[in-house]
Amino acid sequence: MSEAPAIPSEVKLSKKELRKLNRGMEKLSADDHPQELPVVTVDGDGGLESATAAYGMLPLHQSQYKKGPNFVELKDVAQETHVDQYIWIRGRLHRSRMKGKLCFFVVRFQDYRIQNVLSASERTPKEMLAFVAGIPKESIIDLYGCVKKSPVLIEGCNPDTVEIHCERVYVVSAALPTLPLQIEDAMRPEDDETVLSRVHQDTRLDNRYIELRTPVNQAIYRVEAGCVRFFMDYLTKAGFVNIQTPKMISAASEGGANVFKVSYFSGSAYLAQSPQLYKQMAIAADFGRVFTIGAVFRAEDSNTHRHLTEFVGMDIEMAFKNHYHEVVDLIADMFVNMFKGLQREFASEIDTIRKQYKSEPFQFLEPTLRLEYREGIQMLREAGWDLGDLDDLTTPAEKFLGRLIKQKYGTDFYILDKFPLDIRAFYTMPHPTEKEFSNSYDFYMRGEEIMSGAQRIHDPALLTERALHHGVEIEKIKSYIDAFRYGCPPHAGGGIGLERVTMLFLGLDNIRKTSMFPRDPKRLTP
Amino acid sequence: MSEAPAIPSEVKLSKKELRKLNRGMEKLSADDHPQELPVVTVDGDGGLESATAAYGMLPLHQSQYKKGPNFVELKDVAQETHVDQYIWIRGRLHRSRMKGKLCFFVVRFQDYRIQNVLSASERTPKEMLAFVAGIPKESIIDLYGCVKKSPVLIEGCNPDTVEIHCERVYVVSAALPTLPLQIEDAMRPEDDETVLSRVHQDTRLDNRYIELRTPVNQAIYRVEAGCVRFFMDYLTKAGFVNIQTPKMISAASEGGANVFKVSYFSGSAYLAQSPQLYKQMAIAADFGRVFTIGAVFRAEDSNTHRHLTEFVGMDIEMAFKNHYHEVVDLIADMFVNMFKGLQREFASEIDTIRKQYKSEPFQFLEPTLRLEYREGIQMLREAGWDLGDLDDLTTPAEKFLGRLIKQKYGTDFYILDKFPLDIRAFYTMPHPTEKEFSNSYDFYMRGEEIMSGAQRIHDPALLTERALHHGVEIEKIKSYIDAFRYGCPPHAGGGIGLERVTMLFLGLDNIRKTSMFPRDPKRLTP
Repeated sequence: MSEAPAIPSEVKLSKKELRKLNRGMEKLSADDHPQELPVVTVDGDGGLESATAAYGMLPLHQSQYKKGPNFVELKDVAQETHVDQYIWIRGRLHRSRMKGKLCFFVVRFQDYRIQNVLSASERTPKEMLAFVAGIPKESIIDLYGCVKKSPVLIEGCNPDTVEIHCERVYVVSAALPTLPLQIEDAMRPEDDETVLSRVHQDTRLDNRYIELRTPVNQAIYRVEAGCVRFFMDYLTKAGFVNIQTPKMISAASEGGANVFKVSYFSGSAYLAQSPQLYKQMAIAADFGRVFTIGAVFRAEDSNTHRHLTEFVGMDIEMAFKNHYHEVVDLIADMFVNMFKGLQREFASEIDTIRKQYKSEPFQFLEPTLRLEYREGIQMLREAGWDLGDLDDLTTPAEKFLGRLIKQKYGTDFYILDKFPLDIRAFYTMPHPTEKEFSNSYDFYMRGEEIMSGAQRIHDPALLTERALHHGVEIEKIKSYIDAFRYGCPPHAGGGIGLERVTMLFLGLDNIRKTSMFPRDPKRLTP
Repeated sequence: MSEAPAIPSEVKLSKKELRKLNRGMEKLSADDHPQELPVVTVDGDGGLESATAAYGMLPLHQSQYKKGPNFVELKDVAQETHVDQYIWIRGRLHRSRMKGKLCFFVVRFQDYRIQNVLSASERTPKEMLAFVAGIPKESIIDLYGCVKKSPVLIEGCNPDTVEIHCERVYVVSAALPTLPLQIEDAMRPEDDETVLSRVHQDTRLDNRYIELRTPVNQAIYRVEAGCVRFFMDYLTKAGFVNIQTPKMISAASEGGANVFKVSYFSGSAYLAQSPQLYKQMAIAADFGRVFTIGAVFRAEDSNTHRHLTEFVGMDIEMAFKNHYHEVVDLIADMFVNMFKGLQREFASEIDTIRKQYKSEPFQFLEPTLRLEYREGIQMLREAGWDLGDLDDLTTPAEKFLGRLIKQKYGTDFYILDKFPLDIRAFYTMPHPTEKEFSNSYDFYMRGEEIMSGAQRIHDPALLTERALHHGVEIEKIKSYIDAFRYGCPPHAGGGIGLERVTMLFLGLDNIRKTSMFPRDPKRLTP
């Protein structure tokens, strides 16, 4: 590849230089451009040869031409209608190699990789092969060629049944020749023992705009978007209203610890740790059933696989009539609907992810398994854990319980109900007859909590009493308590962590794999 | 109403007192409760008379009973199947009045108001009438009675064709007897000149959990949720991925002014003024088409009808092939689809809102009107405004132009395209041939900007040059520029303010009417 013409490490050219490099981006008439095979017109004052116009650096794309080629998406290249036809595609140069009078190179976009062949001929000078072989990997290129069925399946490509016999190649946006990480390294299965160079998590996250290009990341964030969509669609059909709640609040709503402080003009504000107060206000204001999706903030100095300082909360609150299980049952059904939707509509993404990150398929029951907290404690005790009825579960205990439940009931998704009162937030409704317990519940996936919820206290007197019991300063939560002084229906709800749901549904081991731009105590960039 | 038994101003009762007040919440068997007419069982140790069990304060609702009455929603009460049948409903006491041996009272929930009649008889003692007449307005009550067709339409009710002949009334959650605002006052049309007491905006906002109960607010926030849904559904179908972007960032991304500072452990962070960097990184990472919905923050000390310090951004970014108008056309079509969807699915909400806040119906064209910026300037000049080709438009100029365009083209929705380069953000792509202009656009509704967008510079050298020209510190936006060093397709997008879209679609006069819990320089509560 040493003969390849140098590609500037940054496109920093004078207009004249650009014109010189521009070997082929024809000036197209806006109205009557033939889409199949653009006519090459020679630049008036440049003296470019039409014979050399088949490759080169394009000038900066500033939407110079209203119309242009009809590009075919990479995923559609193998369609019968394109075979033996000339098409245009745009994608990234994934890899390239010279082999005598041939240059093979792969163009990638998302999960699709197409093999292309340039073969030296009268129309295709050797200089063109050298030019293409010299394009830095990850550059965005446009190419034009004829789709041909391949006699063999092309390894590592998708679709792997066709290749393009290339006639023109243009660089749209050049990458620097040295990449901070190699996409092919970042794509390798985690358990591949032949791998020489692994890409470490910090390298991945520091260069997120490159690393996110891998098929597995393309798949993960599509699945995550699917979680949001199934959540919203189910609840909207069930009569819920999507509300927007403020992130800047005047006082720390849940007691004051672990809250980020903001300079607010001449005063201060805090970042909301949850939309709790606001979704409950919406219930006090007769919205009946609400959900909200948005950033929530936790100033916890936790550096674990499942804690972030900023994550996406999917919150639900719902007035019920007779029993808070009306809410629990609805949320459980919402999740089941989500899991089924993901398995139905994202099968290929899930497959792509499991190729790189091995995991067991996610299992769940219908209806959802609901155990009382004390049953969970009992199962752990029988397995040798030393736990009292009212003890809080540690993370290892939760994980262990998850395995016991999987063994006994064959499900990765379950609910623990009726938690001890003292280990829940002050606004949790006490159980009506067993005063050490409460009307509260957690939802779990693969032994990790993904939603915490409860019937809320809708009575200002009891709310005040419970807040005092928890040592919460009443003055700080005055507006919260006041919201219940003018009549409020009984209600319950819960807060779901989106990144945790995605992580655990996919069986991933770190929440930084399901947060596109994660924030933790040590990371605020990119 | 002076004979009515006192309702405690706060429910702060001993268990014994509660039991005393509890005249009628029968203990229902979980399994075989007859839904039509519950059996009244006498409390074992309370000695309550079944004859007096037809009304009273219920004990705090702690989900005591797994099953209970089948409540009918207020909107369904007028259904034929319920006429002449006994039903249970739950709602708020909207108003009540005694009239001899009769007590009339209206139960409200959301936009529905049902008239109820209690008539003194052997089964219904006068004490019960007094009790009901004494219930504070806005309390949540359960009632049981027979649905009867009304011989006349009942004024102020909805449905107005039926009333309930009541036999039991229980208070579920009592309101304080004095309300900070009267719902009936808050519901009156703004142009009603007979109104004696208007509810001022600050009173409304200070008591948002009460004021949001009005039919107009119930309608506004349903329409707003509709905007979000139509936005998401359209883009999802068009292949966009819903991404989540961080709100806490390490440096002020757009230059540094008007940004809120956050204490972040031992250092500092800033609240994102837009997801600009992140949605562009997603494009650099091959997501192709992305949208994101979330809080954006502006530390501007602007106290106007249309500025908030925190609002909901609906952001779009899209790689395009030949011309940025591919993106403009798609966004315009998305909006048209949204407007049609709102008019189709939210006709009754829009009607409710226009009864209280008068406005002209929202008009739009298909395809959307797109004018060049200079055409807008020309129209204003012809109307007598003194403006240069490259001048920025003031808010009054924009509004005036909106009226001119409405007059000439009959649309409230239009695009100005090809803005002067110097008045746009540094990352705006310059026009390819007219160097004083740029590939940028604003979308307007009723003469106010609701989306600003542009083709972005995807070339690091030009981006650096433009940032320097705008006086932006290069060091602060290093990671932004770096994102384009490894190949990036040409792309364009825009940022939409949700509250503005809702406000202007509905023809409202203040953005505080479309932000459920607005934040401005003077308001951080509730």
